[in-house]
Parts: sequence; structure tokens; C-alpha cells
Amino acid sequence: MTPPKRQLHLNAFLHTVGHHEAAWRLPESGITASWDYAHYVHLTKLAERGTFDSIFFADGPSLMGDQRYRPVGWLDPTVLLPALAAVTEHVGLVATASTTYNEPYNLARRFASLDHISNGRAGWNIVTTAGKDAAQNFGLDDIPAHKHRYERATEFLDVCLKLWDSWEDDFLIGDKESGRFAHGDKIHTIDHRGEFFKVRGPLNVPPTPQRHPLLVQAGSSDDGRAFAARYAEAVFTAQQTLEDGQAFYSDLKRQAVAVGRDPSHVVILPGLVPVIGSTEKEALEREAELSRLQVAAYGLKQLSQFMGTEITESDLDKPLRDYGPVKHQEGHQSRFQVITDIARRENLTVRELLLRLGGGRGHRTFAGTPEQIADTIEEWFNSGAADGFNVMAPVLPSSLELFVDHVIPLLRKRGLFRTEYTGKTLRDHYGLPRPGNRYAQAGIAAE
Amino acid sequence: MTPPKRQLHLNAFLHTVGHHEAAWRLPESGITASWDYAHYVHLTKLAERGTFDSIFFADGPSLMGDQRYRPVGWLDPTVLLPALAAVTEHVGLVATASTTYNEPYNLARRFASLDHISNGRAGWNIVTTAGKDAAQNFGLDDIPAHKHRYERATEFLDVCLKLWDSWEDDFLIGDKESGRFAHGDKIHTIDHRGEFFKVRGPLNVPPTPQRHPLLVQAGSSDDGRAFAARYAEAVFTAQQTLEDGQAFYSDLKRQAVAVGRDPSHVVILPGLVPVIGSTEKEALEREAELSRLQVAAYGLKQLSQFMGTEITESDLDKPLRDYGPVKHQEGHQSRFQVITDIARRENLTVRELLLRLGGGRGHRTFAGTPEQIADTIEEWFNSGAADGFNVMAPVLPSSLELFVDHVIPLLRKRGLFRTEYTGKTLRDHYGLPRPGNRYAQAGIAAE
Repeated sequence: MTPPKRQLHLNAFLHTVGHHEAAWRLPESGITASWDYAHYVHLTKLAERGTFDSIFFADGPSLMGDQRYRPVGWLDPTVLLPALAAVTEHVGLVATASTTYNEPYNLARRFASLDHISNGRAGWNIVTTAGKDAAQNFGLDDIPAHKHRYERATEFLDVCLKLWDSWEDDFLIGDKESGRFAHGDKIHTIDHRGEFFKVRGPLNVPPTPQRHPLLVQAGSSDDGRAFAARYAEAVFTAQQTLEDGQAFYSDLKRQAVAVGRDPSHVVILPGLVPVIGSTEKEALEREAELSRLQVAAYGLKQLSQFMGTEITESDLDKPLRDYGPVKHQEGHQSRFQVITDIARRENLTVRELLLRLGGGRGHRTFAGTPEQIADTIEEWFNSGAADGFNVMAPVLPSSLELFVDHVIPLLRKRGLFRTEYTGKTLRDHYGLPRPGNRYAQAGIAAE
Repeated sequence: MTPPKRQLHLNAFLHTVGHHEAAWRLPESGITASWDYAHYVHLTKLAERGTFDSIFFADGPSLMGDQRYRPVGWLDPTVLLPALAAVTEHVGLVATASTTYNEPYNLARRFASLDHISNGRAGWNIVTTAGKDAAQNFGLDDIPAHKHRYERATEFLDVCLKLWDSWEDDFLIGDKESGRFAHGDKIHTIDHRGEFFKVRGPLNVPPTPQRHPLLVQAGSSDDGRAFAARYAEAVFTAQQTLEDGQAFYSDLKRQAVAVGRDPSHVVILPGLVPVIGSTEKEALEREAELSRLQVAAYGLKQLSQFMGTEITESDLDKPLRDYGPVKHQEGHQSRFQVITDIARRENLTVRELLLRLGGGRGHRTFAGTPEQIADTIEEWFNSGAADGFNVMAPVLPSSLELFVDHVIPLLRKRGLFRTEYTGKTLRDHYGLPRPGNRYAQAGIAAE
């Protein structure tokens, strides 16, 4: 018997009416779809029809971007995903949530609740939230230092993991006759006391199908990579070239091994913005049309946020100034690096850079036929640059429809991607084991 | 034309497999139903079939009660309700959430998101969270003082109201041709600076069908009543006797008038635990059966929490000790009052008191035929004690099924309760107007 061929993993990153900042201006796009539940029901069912491993929402607790030129208001993903769980059966459901602006008890509960409701399909993209706007919604004047945010994130996750372990799987007695419902000694206080948190526990949610949500991480700074290597089960990353993708992939897998983990348990998913045409010419025209619809004022504001300084209309036809090494940045470190790399490598003016960023904010855009897109996916997958992709449809729903109907069939035909779901939980889809429980394991060890 | 008869409002308070602490021991009850989404789908559809105004979940961020003798783990209602919104169309969806252990920006977003997903059916039961267990999950050693909690709650709500107003209804331009999506000057920072919070805003969710969730309040302490009179649109309360109910009702309506509100915009809903039998004898037998299944150790622990001191097995056959005036209590003030009143009025031993509390933790239990239950509802409704009821089924789903199939038809026949939904939003059901927007109103005033 031949061993089964290594399988791709695909995440559908859903974002308003598309990742391209001008997507809303296309005739096909719904003006209020970005905060319309029905829009997301359609997208999620579509992703499930395409047997995606998961859908995913980015998030931050502030109004990001410039609402004058783009729909930027949307729904809290930890509220939206349960409503999407209710109308789907298989696809994984990943929400971004911040460790800087939440309390671990509350967040651990919400993800445990989502895991119950979805029968084991919850995932958490752990972010520390860069951006001054968010800080100012939580009593601060500016964002906490990068180092501080990652230290807090590490302890935050530690508390959550303890809370998710606080009930052993065999806690239940359920004896109606005697009135004994549960073993008191299988439900544990965690008595956590750390630098940032003091939490007694136990959690008030019984153990969930996955025990805890799939842990996802998306920051590629040094701190971000170290965090991912230790904890993440899936990693989203922005990589512009195959060489950069390979370097990131091998570095992160090496770091995972160095901390004693199985490297196959860290699934690496670079972003891909697929602009699909039935011919290459049609795809490039589509890309050009979207570029033509960009509003410079919108891009300048977003670029200013990523760069941590104001970049104005008068800079448009100049090259991007030198903002010094990435270490000076407290927020968006890895995105800062990707953007300055693009600008330098391709010797772009700010105006040209804005066009390059309009589709995916530093993620890799690829315009081509379904065949060409399947080729680049296969190339990265087989060259040590990716375990799969974070598919960022530039226009939603249309680009995701094209991807599901034209790219996925090719990937299936090549034996690279599932034709139906074989597992039940999100971890099953990603080929990951259900985590063990520290208390139950301690018990076994003591026997 | 005769004016339409004043209509009852009914809220279905859903709680695990029933409000009676021994409900899980009945043969009909599902052992793991308390954290099973399918159980809540069934209950919510049932409430909708009964044209209830709303369903409701209590909540607190700690494991409450003694899990050894009762299923006490459940799901976060702000995660569960969106999943219930997805499978219903009409019934209102009210979640409890704490102002002591959340941040206003996060909570305002979650309720706004729920209001979008449910097409205007969101409600928020605003609680300050009594109980040491919760405090210890958030870095504290004990609960913050009662006064402090209510001061924080007031400012918390103020921040949320500002955030929900931060987008005017006519913010949208949506001109694809020019690329102008929204009016920048109709989306406002709130720049709140208070004693507890500093929040810049705006919210990152566009205006919702109800603008903000229905505001519900359930504390009946002096601070709680003052808060309710000022802000609450619906009030849950525990009242044992018609006289107490009338006194509470008239006091709260008077306080609402005193702060300039229309008293009909504060809907008062006393709790009612209906134990239903086809004869009175059958109902009383059902009640006795549930009492027989109570485990004293469970009730003692809960009573100790409400009283703020340990009450043990050795106290069972003694009268409840005198714990002094309610003001000594930092948590559960109004429940403390109700419980000591019951014990004194009926001269009960602790054992007898536990049996009285087993069904509804201080809420009024009424055992009888559907006719008798409809009678007591009508009596309170027509005697200035209630605008409707918070229906606390002792066993779920069975007692709610009996209520929907046997009590509601009687209320409808008497012309007291709707036969179908006539409004769309939760506020429509309760006969309340959609709140105005301070910014839009300021604009109109300035014209």
C-alpha cells in the first residue's frame, strides 16, 4: 500500500466584500454586505462546498481603515461564528481575538462555548493587536510595547490552557438515583498567579470536543515566530516570494523542533490573493480594473498605520522614505518588514506601492488562470514554502466562487486536496491530535 | 373603536435542564443537555411557538453552584444566542453580561453584532456580578463594594450608549462611481473620559436595527432600583407575594417618572416558577417529587453564597440565624432580602427554607392547573404588580412545553397575550420605541 499523498490545507480568509480595498466599487458588490449576516452565510456555505479546512475572520477592537472610502465596520467574529456554526456542519471556524484587550477567563469561555456549539470546529487566531486606535478604546494613550504585548500574550494563553484543562474528560457521574452529578475532584481550580493575571478557575464550561480551540498565530516578527513555534498549530503569514516563503517555513519548523514539537503539528499557510481569469489576459485586466478603482487617500492612511508615521499626498511620486530598522516599530513589525522589502526590491514610488498593497495589504497577489494558480500553489507546497494557503479572495463572493469552482477541482484532480471531509473537528481537518489534559496525565503518571 | 386591551409580556428564562435544582434527576432529563446546543435550539423554537417576547439566559464568569450535585457548567450566552438567532425569526434574545468583568468597547460590539445577526432581537441584562468566585477569576481577592460596582455599571452603560450612537443612521453614501463610501462627519469619536473608563471610539459596528439592545436589569436593591428606574426597559424581579409585587411595581414606576421617563417604558416582569399539573393534586405531587430529589449539601452551599456566610448541615433543623440588615451584604443584596423575608414570615427551619428555594432560588413558585396559573398571572397583571412574567420553567423542556401548550392558549383566549408576532424587533414585542441618536438629534436641534 502506498502511503497517502501529503495533503494541502486551505483556509478561506473572509473579509467584508473582499480583500481588495476597492472591491466594494464593483457593480456586483453589496453596499451593506460587510455587516450582513446573510452575506457571511453564503460565503461560509461556499467554503464548505469547497471542503476548505476553515474559514477565518481578522479582527481588532477599533474602527480600522478609513470609512469614508471603504466599508470598514463589521461584526465581532466571536459573535458571528456561532451563527455560522448553526448553518454548517464541517468547515472550521477561526476567530481573531486580542490578548491585549481581553481577560483570559472571558475569552477561554467564549472559545469553549463555540467549540461546543460547532461540535469541535473552533479556532482562535491569537493576536496582540497593534494600533493606537485600539489602545485608545481601552484607557491607554498608545499601544503597549511589542515585548510587553507578547509577554502578556504568553501568560494569557497559559491561563487559557489551564482553564481548558480544568475539567477532566471523565468528570461526569450523572447518577440520577444517588443525586451525584460530577466528581468534585476531577474539576480543578487552576490558582494561577503570574505577572499579568491572577485567576482561580475552574472554567464554567465542561470539556469541549477539541478540548481547546485550534491555536492560530499570524505575527511573523521575532517575538511572533518564537510564540508560534511554541504554541501555534496553524500559522498565517505574508510572504511575497518563494525564497522568502521557504526561509520563513524552514525557520519556523526548525524553531518548533528546537522546543520539542513535531514540526508537522505547525501548519504553515502563506496568504494568497488569487485574481482569477479564464485567460491570463482576463485575470490581469481584472487586477488592473481593481487598481484603477483604488482611492489614494485610503491607501495612504493605511500605509501610514503600517509604517507608524504619516505619509501624505505629497509623497505619492517619491520612493518610500527609509524608516530605519523594524525594531523601531512597536506595532505591525512583520508587515512593516514586508512592505519595506517590496518597496526596496522593486524600487517603487509610494503610488506604485499603494497599487501593490491594495489587494492584500502586503500579502502575495497572483493573477492568472485556475491552472496557473493551482501551479503556484503546488510549487510552493512542494518546495518547502507552505503546508497550504490562506486564501484571500480579492472580491467576495465572486473570487471565492471562482476558486471553489475552478481551482479546487484542479487541486483535487492532482491528488493534493480532499474531495470530502473525512474528520469531524477542525483539528481533524488539519491533521492534528486532540490535546491531552495535564490533570488526567498527572493522574496516569502517578499510578 | 375600543382601545386594544393591555397586553402581557412573557420572557422565557432558560436555565440548564430547569430552574429546579433537582430537575436533572428526573428520568426525562438529559444528563449533558445543559451544555448541548441542540437542547437550547429546541427550547428557543418552543418559546417562539409560544410567541414569548424573549428568551433569556442568566450568567456569571465563574463556576456557580456545586457541580457535584447539579449540572452547573453551561455556555456563554453571548456566544449561544447568535447560534439561536440563526434558527429562529421572531423571539427576542436576552443575554446577561457583567459590567464589572468586561470592557465597554468589547461588550458594546458584541451586542451590536448580535442585534445585526438577529435583525433587531438583542437584549442585555446588565449585571454587576455578585460573588467572590467571579472576582477571583479576574485578579481580585473579593468582590468590589456594592456601591463601587453600581457606579462602574452606570459609567459602563454610559460609554456603551455613546458607542451605539457613534454612527448616525444616515452615515452611508455608497457611491461606487466616486468611491465615497460614508460621510466621515456622521461617524463620531466619543472621547469619553470618566472615573472608570477612557474610550475614544467610534464603535466599529454600523448602526443596528434597534440602535442598541433592549436594556434589562434584575437587581432590586436600592442601587439596583435607581439604576433600573433610569435605564432599564425591562426589569426582572423576585417577588413572593402580591403585596410585595405591588409595592415594588409602584415604587419602580414612581422612580422612573421622577427621572422623567414614561413609566410604560419600564416593563416589570416578576419571576414565576410554574409547576403545572392537569389537576392541582398532580401539580402538588410534581412539586413534592422535585423537593424529595433535592440534595441538602447543594442547597446549603448556594444558601451560604446568597447569605454571605457558611451555613452547614448542623444548622438544618434550626431557624435561619439573623444576619443583620441587608446593607451589610456586598453581593446579592436583593436576594438576601427576599430569602430572609421568607424565612421570617413563614418561620422556617433551614431545611424547610431549602425546600422553598429549590425551585427558583427565591423566585415565586406556583403549583397548579393551567387555569390556576393563568388566574394568578391575570391577577398580578391587573392588580398593579406586573406587566408580564419572567417564566422560569422548573424542568426543561417539559414545564415549558406544558406552559406553551396549556397556559398560553388560556391567556390568548382571555385576550391578554398575542396570538402571533406583530412587530419585528425585540423592542416592538415589548411595545418600546427605537431609541434616538444624540448626534442626529443635536444636528436637528441646530437647524
